[in-house]
Amino acid sequence: MAVDTFTTYLTEKTAYIEDRLISALEQEGVPSALYESMKYSLMAGGKRLRPMLVLAVLEALDKPIERGVPFAVALEMIHTYSLIHDDLPAMDDDDLRRGKPTNHKVFGEATAILAGDALLTRAFSLIAESYMGRTDVPAATTVKLIAELGRRAGARGMVGGQMADIEGEMKRLELPQLEFIHEHKTGDLLIAALRGGGYLAEASEKQMEMLTRYGYCIGLAFQIQDDILNVEGDAAELGKAVGSDAQRQKATYPSILGLEQSKERLAALIAEAKAALADAGLEHSALGPLADYVRDRKK
Amino acid sequence: MAVDTFTTYLTEKTAYIEDRLISALEQEGVPSALYESMKYSLMAGGKRLRPMLVLAVLEALDKPIERGVPFAVALEMIHTYSLIHDDLPAMDDDDLRRGKPTNHKVFGEATAILAGDALLTRAFSLIAESYMGRTDVPAATTVKLIAELGRRAGARGMVGGQMADIEGEMKRLELPQLEFIHEHKTGDLLIAALRGGGYLAEASEKQMEMLTRYGYCIGLAFQIQDDILNVEGDAAELGKAVGSDAQRQKATYPSILGLEQSKERLAALIAEAKAALADAGLEHSALGPLADYVRDRKK
Repeated sequence: MAVDTFTTYLTEKTAYIEDRLISALEQEGVPSALYESMKYSLMAGGKRLRPMLVLAVLEALDKPIERGVPFAVALEMIHTYSLIHDDLPAMDDDDLRRGKPTNHKVFGEATAILAGDALLTRAFSLIAESYMGRTDVPAATTVKLIAELGRRAGARGMVGGQMADIEGEMKRLELPQLEFIHEHKTGDLLIAALRGGGYLAEASEKQMEMLTRYGYCIGLAFQIQDDILNVEGDAAELGKAVGSDAQRQKATYPSILGLEQSKERLAALIAEAKAALADAGLEHSALGPLADYVRDRKK
Repeated sequence: MAVDTFTTYLTEKTAYIEDRLISALEQEGVPSALYESMKYSLMAGGKRLRPMLVLAVLEALDKPIERGVPFAVALEMIHTYSLIHDDLPAMDDDDLRRGKPTNHKVFGEATAILAGDALLTRAFSLIAESYMGRTDVPAATTVKLIAELGRRAGARGMVGGQMADIEGEMKRLELPQLEFIHEHKTGDLLIAALRGGGYLAEASEKQMEMLTRYGYCIGLAFQIQDDILNVEGDAAELGKAVGSDAQRQKATYPSILGLEQSKERLAALIAEAKAALADAGLEHSALGPLADYVRDRKK
């Protein structure tokens, strides 16, 4: 896929996903402040990488992308809730996210906590409700999607990664601890996206294994690029301050490995991700350019 | 069921449930502070009413109670997470719960938020994982359980009720608004317990309807008794202060209806709950004494 074509692809898919995000939020019977708070963060932009990966797996395996929509939307809801909670004063205490005031700055802390809880809960009910009774997605597949998502998003996955991140703050972390944090805080939800897409697209066991590998690599790569952008990125483009990691004395790839070696590790991970794709026979899909995009992104 | 027999029943079932709660928490791969925080609140006692209702429905319909265990445990996890988050400084700011320091008092706010998030997530993955591949619980039933639980626990259910409660604080609420809060904040999760039990026990449509009615009534009754205990209960037995509602000028049944009329409403709801049971042909099960227990409890 040429770079232009891929840029168009990203734009189209983002619009497609955002359309579906908004309609998946329940409004009737929901207190309006709660609904507004959920909507504010869900529709606050972002790369929509997780939903994009679900749809890309379906495409790669010649299945209709529509089949992936409820799962894709659920993933974005979980990602969004995690950002709302991470930004809270008791956690990272961030005032800005993607250039906009964070949820609790707009709606207050109590509503932000509840909006996060409600998005997390909605993710699971959305999957269960949307696939119920569908002939193209057997109930056993729906159960697998929920088990996968729950496991990757929970105490052994994303939440565990966030906990390790908080515990590690201001400590002198070594690389293995830093990789543990990133594997779980970021990687696990990307892996859930890929494996969930795989279940929906009836991927082979070998393909599931390679999709998992690809997810692990781009998850870690994503985080390394995040750390690099925090050193040499553009604050305006990023929508957040740069240099904050160094200021907080936070352990990062550049702080442990240096900038050059971090870039080498990033390149190696993307190469490994692409090798996994090739092993799965999926190297000609959008998953290839998506891996490059994780490396080359400026925000 | 005689009162003694029912007391023995409660004690036995509580022990049965608590055994299963602890083993449902994942420990491997979970940061230890996160695990300890989740365990602390999950094992901090409580009436275990929601799990009890699931098991009672299975018994009432002559099905093995073991079939209800994962769903019952998931409900208690969701109830527990909601207490952890409700107690946070940004919410009700409570220092004590069941006579013990609240989660954030012991583990700090960040860990308490994450422990709540992880318990909520675990509830869904537990249901999906535990029923996967079982012949007595078809995958389609598992999907229904998750849809029911997600709906009742989310923005239109428990979280919505908590939001309305926060918005209503210090306002002069009328009875319909107070009932909205209680229906959702407390009632919805009890209804989920009963309906989930119904799905697992293959209840008839009529029985599902009556179980829902029963749940609505005991949910409201539960809350009225809570309000009454806050006026005339025993602080030592309750494990929390009495008179706090009046002090906070919180709208309650006694503050709106007076104590006597509140007690009448409570009695009428329990009578209605029992009538629903009789309509479903389930009046000889433990669900009858459980309704009385909601009315007569001292803590």
